[in-house]
Amino acid sequence: MNESENFKEQTLDESTMTSFDHLIINANIATFSAHYGFNNDKNEDARSIPYGQLENAAIGIKDGKIAWIGAQEQITTHLPHYQDNQVTDANGKWLMPGLIDCHTHIVYGGNRSNEFEARLQGASYQDIAAQGGGIVATVSATRAASIETLFTQSEKRLVALMKEGVTSIEIKSGYGLDLDTERKMLTVARQLGEKYDIHVSTTYLAAHALPPEYKSHMQDRADDYIEQVCEWLPILHAEGLVDAVDGFCENIAFSSDQIRRVFEVARSLDLPVKLHAEQLSDIGGSALVAEYKGLSSDHLEHLSETDIEKMAASNTVAVILPGAFYTLRDTKLPPIEALRKHQVPMAISTDCNPGTSPLTSLLLAMNMGCTLFYLTPEEVLAGSTVYAAKALGLSNKGKIEVGCDADLALWDIARPADLAYQMGLNPIAGTMFQGQWRDKA
Amino acid sequence: MNESENFKEQTLDESTMTSFDHLIINANIATFSAHYGFNNDKNEDARSIPYGQLENAAIGIKDGKIAWIGAQEQITTHLPHYQDNQVTDANGKWLMPGLIDCHTHIVYGGNRSNEFEARLQGASYQDIAAQGGGIVATVSATRAASIETLFTQSEKRLVALMKEGVTSIEIKSGYGLDLDTERKMLTVARQLGEKYDIHVSTTYLAAHALPPEYKSHMQDRADDYIEQVCEWLPILHAEGLVDAVDGFCENIAFSSDQIRRVFEVARSLDLPVKLHAEQLSDIGGSALVAEYKGLSSDHLEHLSETDIEKMAASNTVAVILPGAFYTLRDTKLPPIEALRKHQVPMAISTDCNPGTSPLTSLLLAMNMGCTLFYLTPEEVLAGSTVYAAKALGLSNKGKIEVGCDADLALWDIARPADLAYQMGLNPIAGTMFQGQWRDKA
Ligand SMILES: [Zn+2]
Ligand SMILES: [Zn+2]
Repeated sequence: MNESENFKEQTLDESTMTSFDHLIINANIATFSAHYGFNNDKNEDARSIPYGQLENAAIGIKDGKIAWIGAQEQITTHLPHYQDNQVTDANGKWLMPGLIDCHTHIVYGGNRSNEFEARLQGASYQDIAAQGGGIVATVSATRAASIETLFTQSEKRLVALMKEGVTSIEIKSGYGLDLDTERKMLTVARQLGEKYDIHVSTTYLAAHALPPEYKSHMQDRADDYIEQVCEWLPILHAEGLVDAVDGFCENIAFSSDQIRRVFEVARSLDLPVKLHAEQLSDIGGSALVAEYKGLSSDHLEHLSETDIEKMAASNTVAVILPGAFYTLRDTKLPPIEALRKHQVPMAISTDCNPGTSPLTSLLLAMNMGCTLFYLTPEEVLAGSTVYAAKALGLSNKGKIEVGCDADLALWDIARPADLAYQMGLNPIAGTMFQGQWRDKA
Repeated sequence: MNESENFKEQTLDESTMTSFDHLIINANIATFSAHYGFNNDKNEDARSIPYGQLENAAIGIKDGKIAWIGAQEQITTHLPHYQDNQVTDANGKWLMPGLIDCHTHIVYGGNRSNEFEARLQGASYQDIAAQGGGIVATVSATRAASIETLFTQSEKRLVALMKEGVTSIEIKSGYGLDLDTERKMLTVARQLGEKYDIHVSTTYLAAHALPPEYKSHMQDRADDYIEQVCEWLPILHAEGLVDAVDGFCENIAFSSDQIRRVFEVARSLDLPVKLHAEQLSDIGGSALVAEYKGLSSDHLEHLSETDIEKMAASNTVAVILPGAFYTLRDTKLPPIEALRKHQVPMAISTDCNPGTSPLTSLLLAMNMGCTLFYLTPEEVLAGSTVYAAKALGLSNKGKIEVGCDADLALWDIARPADLAYQMGLNPIAGTMFQGQWRDKA
């Protein structure tokens, strides 16, 4: 399949061609669509086209969807039918799917810069924990914050991400660890999605950590807490607050048996699951996610090849989180080569959180994916678009293809790799959400 | 010296107090001034005040300088003498010296994202060099660019840095490696300083790399090239283009004997010197800088304690560049403990360049300084203000002190450490350059 063949497929008659609400012309397009040659399987298909790219192309948008994609020359004769404000001349800039941050904890109270500073001044993690630091500090601050304060604090992080062309974001709960505060977090996440032109997917992560009030006898009380987590889920789901269910499966958090109990409730509610797994050790988290045909398994530094095969079979996305790896000065790389070999789609995300990844730049997460994990620019860009959409179960987002949502980012760059190469430069020229320009330079 | 004593020193009579052009009130101030207890020597002076901070304070500005600093309560009765547009209510935000990026190569043509991508796809450095890549690619692109193109491309990088409160920047030549292109680069640097409200210090770095046309017989031709470098310096200096002189002292670049020849010319012109030294090996660069009482020695991963002592004696700043360390996946840390022990002031900078540090965020450089080099937030902030000023020989910048330039950044943060802790969030609320608000949220 070559580019000109693709263009032919998309030829439309004049009445259709003049019916679009909006046109973007003179664009180079990174489609990340298999229709245009994008292919994750670099081993087998020599004909794959990097980024599924189309040069000197145009797209038509109707009713918030991508309605047509074709060669610039096809559209030229129809331009007089459009008003100036319906046409955006990209002037050779790169048009891509809006970015998708598929794993974040942006809703939280307080911050932990005081701990960051104390550690660098010589305090140990034990010292800090003894002073009520660590995740407990964020839980306390989040519980104490009013819903308005929580919204205002979280909004800054959302806006920072949106400035870089993010059009969809996942937001987790997990700093409440009680019913009211988990509800408050998920409510703020929903409110952010209502106030801003961005798609928000919410994730229930009450199984994030054992709350302080359950800590007297770790093992027994963890089971008690998981029982609560299982009871709260149907309540919050009934309130329309939950799109997916997550947990932290780790020696320092919950066992795979405990997570399984939460996943059973999720299954009974027909909610998709995902998991923080194999970040610090391998206790079978990803195998569990695969068993439940989960959307994604996330972190994965200690993932085994056996479990990679299970993820491949269950079509589960591997979400790679270099911000936490960087902040924790981790040295154990996730098994990128094995993930490639088994064609497990890889997404990349900020993991924005106050403890291990205070990161509100998906572009920087991409750079870290390349620099620290040796991913290619094409992999990190696919991981922030088409595979990030897949990690959220959003089949109509993350690629530029007829019928998909017109969530788009226009970049003032020479080539797609610029986005992963530059650090701190934001070359966004415009972001479109559901067919409407949200920001335009 | 405690805070209230300081405030007393600064008490002024009414006529002075009502003569300021501008007041900033209700601020928390990180002064980085010894007058307010800021002290680099943590070993000896237990009374040092972190960040030289003053809480609930105000400052008066006159003729582009800081004219008064004192407690909020002192100013309150004088406020009615001022018009609204003369007063900025910081509302408890943190006021700091404007940031100073003391080591950059932001003026260059092209970019090297293609090489970044090729390497991640498996190409070796040798493959890339064989295809005309590496610094040679930037030299070619910089030589080929018109002065207007070079300005436009470099301007984006300057603007990105300025958005984060940078009020002074050093810009090096070194991608021309011939007289005309070195002149073009330095001219663009000067033009950037004229167009934008920022102080630009220019640095002549023709001794950056051996130009391709000198490469047939490395050793001999390097001496020939250095002869040219020495001849061009007085010419460009006479044109007003040179504030300081730099070189790259390394096995893959120039020997300390070759750099000495350039430094001799600098000394004859009364120009300060600095050096890229001990990044990859120890061939005596920092000792040479110390001998010439240089402003700074930069990179320093392989610096010996003997040479640290020489730097301490010559009052030479150690410029730490974590962006290059990160991008090159280096593992050899600079000798931070020994630099602390000998009280060598440390600055931190982006080293923004297209090959080893495509970084246009000084805030991110600070985070890397903490995360990768275990510097404290106070050290990286002092390294981006008072010690960065020292590295550029700017004695009236980089601190908040009566008589200093009113180059200021106002930050919407809970505490100074937030600036080093957050990645990708830009909490700037306003930047003042020479007493005028440049950007204000
Ligand atoms: Zn997470
Ligand atoms: Zn440099």
